[in-house]
Amino acid sequence: MDLAALQDVIERTYGDRDRARGVSATVAWLTEEIGELAQAVRKGSYEQQVHEFGDVIAWVATLANQMGIDLAAALQRYAAGCPRCATSPCTCP
Amino acid sequence: MDLAALQDVIERTYGDRDRARGVSATVAWLTEEIGELAQAVRKGSYEQQVHEFGDVIAWVATLANQMGIDLAAALQRYAAGCPRCATSPCTCP
Repeated sequence: MDLAALQDVIERTYGDRDRARGVSATVAWLTEEIGELAQAVRKGSYEQQVHEFGDVIAWVATLANQMGIDLAAALQRYAAGCPRCATSPCTCP
Repeated sequence: MDLAALQDVIERTYGDRDRARGVSATVAWLTEEIGELAQAVRKGSYEQQVHEFGDVIAWVATLANQMGIDLAAALQRYAAGCPRCATSPCTCP
C-alpha cells in the first residue's frame, strides 16, 4: 500500500468522524500513538512494534487528510537523499 | 515515493549515523518533530505543514529501519478499512 492509497482508505474509513472531532483531537490522538510506539520500541514484542508503527502512520495520514496535505508529495524533499546537504549518505555536520 | 522506497533512501542517507546514535536518540528526535508538526498544524503556513509532515514520516522511517520493521507491511491492517470493525467507513462505537 503506498501513501496515496493509505490516505484514501483512511479518508473513506475515518474521514467523517475525524473531521467531526476536529484537528486538535487528531493531534492529541497522534501524540498518544507516538507514546505507545515509544513504549513498544523500548520493551514491546516485534508484533506490538509492527502494530504501533502502523497506527502512527495511519494517524499521520488522518491528520494529513484533515489538513489537505499529500504525504507522498511532502516526502519528495527526501527523494534524492538529505534535503539539507542534497547527498546520500548525508554529510551534514 | 512509496514506503519501501522511502525506507531505502532513508537507510542509505542516514542509516549509519542513526545506528551510531541509537534508538533512544531517534525516539527523542521523532518526538521533537511531532512537536514541530503540531505547531505547524496550529499556526504554520501550508508550506511549513508540508515540510513537517515530510519530516515526521521520514523520522518514523528511520526508527522503523532501526527496529527492522517494514512500514508497508505494518499498514496492511488498514488495507480493508478499520482494523477493529473490519468495515469502511468505520462503525466502531
